Amino acid sequence: MASPRKTVLITGAAGYIGSHIALCCLLSGKYSVVTIDNFHNSFPTALERVTKIAQDALPAGASDEDKKALEIKCYRGDISIKSEIDQIFKDYEGKGGIWGVIHVAALKAVGESGEIPIKYYENNITATINLLDVMDKYKVYNLVYSSSATVYGAPPQCPIPESSPLQPESCYGRTKFMSELIIKDVCDSAPDKWRAISLRYFNPAGAHPSGQIGEDPRGRPGNLLPLLAQMAVGKFPEGLKIFGNDYDTPDGTCVRDYIHIMDLAEGHVLALAALPRDEIYAAQGQAAGFGSSGGKYKAYNLGKGKGMSVLNMVDAMQKASGFKYKTEIVGRRTGDVPELTADPALAEKELEFKAKRDLEAMCRDQWNWQSNNPKGYENQA
Amino acid sequence: MASPRKTVLITGAAGYIGSHIALCCLLSGKYSVVTIDNFHNSFPTALERVTKIAQDALPAGASDEDKKALEIKCYRGDISIKSEIDQIFKDYEGKGGIWGVIHVAALKAVGESGEIPIKYYENNITATINLLDVMDKYKVYNLVYSSSATVYGAPPQCPIPESSPLQPESCYGRTKFMSELIIKDVCDSAPDKWRAISLRYFNPAGAHPSGQIGEDPRGRPGNLLPLLAQMAVGKFPEGLKIFGNDYDTPDGTCVRDYIHIMDLAEGHVLALAALPRDEIYAAQGQAAGFGSSGGKYKAYNLGKGKGMSVLNMVDAMQKASGFKYKTEIVGRRTGDVPELTADPALAEKELEFKAKRDLEAMCRDQWNWQSNNPKGYENQA
Repeated sequence: MASPRKTVLITGAAGYIGSHIALCCLLSGKYSVVTIDNFHNSFPTALERVTKIAQDALPAGASDEDKKALEIKCYRGDISIKSEIDQIFKDYEGKGGIWGVIHVAALKAVGESGEIPIKYYENNITATINLLDVMDKYKVYNLVYSSSATVYGAPPQCPIPESSPLQPESCYGRTKFMSELIIKDVCDSAPDKWRAISLRYFNPAGAHPSGQIGEDPRGRPGNLLPLLAQMAVGKFPEGLKIFGNDYDTPDGTCVRDYIHIMDLAEGHVLALAALPRDEIYAAQGQAAGFGSSGGKYKAYNLGKGKGMSVLNMVDAMQKASGFKYKTEIVGRRTGDVPELTADPALAEKELEFKAKRDLEAMCRDQWNWQSNNPKGYENQA
Repeated sequence: MASPRKTVLITGAAGYIGSHIALCCLLSGKYSVVTIDNFHNSFPTALERVTKIAQDALPAGASDEDKKALEIKCYRGDISIKSEIDQIFKDYEGKGGIWGVIHVAALKAVGESGEIPIKYYENNITATINLLDVMDKYKVYNLVYSSSATVYGAPPQCPIPESSPLQPESCYGRTKFMSELIIKDVCDSAPDKWRAISLRYFNPAGAHPSGQIGEDPRGRPGNLLPLLAQMAVGKFPEGLKIFGNDYDTPDGTCVRDYIHIMDLAEGHVLALAALPRDEIYAAQGQAAGFGSSGGKYKAYNLGKGKGMSVLNMVDAMQKASGFKYKTEIVGRRTGDVPELTADPALAEKELEFKAKRDLEAMCRDQWNWQSNNPKGYENQA
């Protein structure tokens, strides 16, 4: 009997966010996963582990076919080269086709993006245009896009609703902003075909509770939680620099909206389910220029809607890991905004999305991953 | 003796705007021209005629070498394919290299852009990213970019200064806006290398006074002057529809800023000359987000700074061609803005640019081209 699962192409499924999305797609029972990944900042091992976690979650006595449906077909390739995307869609034509795409693959370091902008535009914009062109060729019109809260820049109000003006302040943020504009134009050009949802991530953190998959950044982590987790296994003995404690926030340090990676990943399964629902594609709650022009395009925040300061996070990781952090307050960093938190109401209402896992779970799972894999994926004992 | 001319790559030099730019580059005595063109909306004949006009302008007794320096090396190719750009730069490495690029090639029909956005993004964005990447590879850091007044959308004030917010209202306008942002990010990433000037065209019209080169659009012209010129040679006997005569303008019809194509083209030679001048790359007069971040990027309007209504243009073309136009007032067209005129002060001050040709010359030259080439380039008697 053929699997009733729909095939979803997840670009960059071996990465931190992509692997958790792939897992949630498999666990939903509704989707099988194919991916293309260039392993620039990710590891093939992650895909094997995703399959293993999903297989372990099957009921006792599951058939070999059920297990096989959880294997992830992986193309090692580069989506900035159109023919490499085309090959996948071509291969799947004979296997019932690809139902939809979750486009996650991108370069994502804000600082680096200002140093090598051409690489960022090629990987994040040319690649998106390539993907849309190939989808169009093979008549695959369902898309969920990984956007980012960086599209808001320094917003006029916090928590940030989706209707906030889009004024990204980094090259990385502009690649996400432009991709959204491009996808929206494509949706507007053919409302009878295209449907797309952009998900604007706030600060994803944590890991699957199994401790089998998690964030394994190359080099020094750019994000706070993986940095704290790595410190607790002995890296970066110089301790944590905190950039400013004189902001107008409860404890003076910057406040961000951390969302558990499993909540974020589940949001994608909800978005896939929402794509076919005509009623969501209305103008309400969208930024200027992003309102309905007849096209079926919508953007949603994925955040918890709750701010956590740098000191909150250090405390919480200290509890989770038992490690006593050395911190040092230094001057403010150019470009840092005191507070960035999501207004999650729109996703809650229209996607039935709710970030239900708390800070304690996030830190526990982050630490579980880190302590089980002190050197990440490739350097196991 | 080697030619003292610098080699400039003009993308799309066979097109209407590109051919006049190529001619002005050659006439300046400072540049030789190489081009890549896919002849999507242009004709190889234009390049031969540009060379002929430039050669005819040489003083009597010019050497064969002087004449040869006016030949345009043309690559038939597509800049959305990176290897086709790379080949040019590679070929020129042995010939003193390419000094700079004028990036003109693009799809440009506002209406069509909303219907086939993926093609527009591929031709106008992927291509720009490809070009920047290849330039970077070959260490060619001088760029003049063909932007458009469409980046302003419906501006809050008229005449429009460069500091006006950028809020394009069409997919075409967004491709120009994004290209500017991308080029600016690249300039900001390496102020010691990159220099770029974007030129925001208002409404180019007319032709070189020889009547040998001009606008030869495929199908029904989207712009007013070529449409009127073609009507005067017997096409479109149904006459001209005027979309609204109840706007708040002197005669009730929409007002635009028409600039003679030779003035516009000469602006590019001035921009090439300005690129090395450090003092122009300041924040003054630029839109939010386009101010100086240390990078050497600047945008200028190219317009006459004078508005002409639809009825003004019909009158002027009637005088030039002797043709009595049949016009019909119909309802306003969605998206039309009553008035769009350039504030040309910044280009005047910093580039020493001045659109000196008047409306009479524009219409005379338009008609001279049309009457000499009633069927355009490819259908000569």
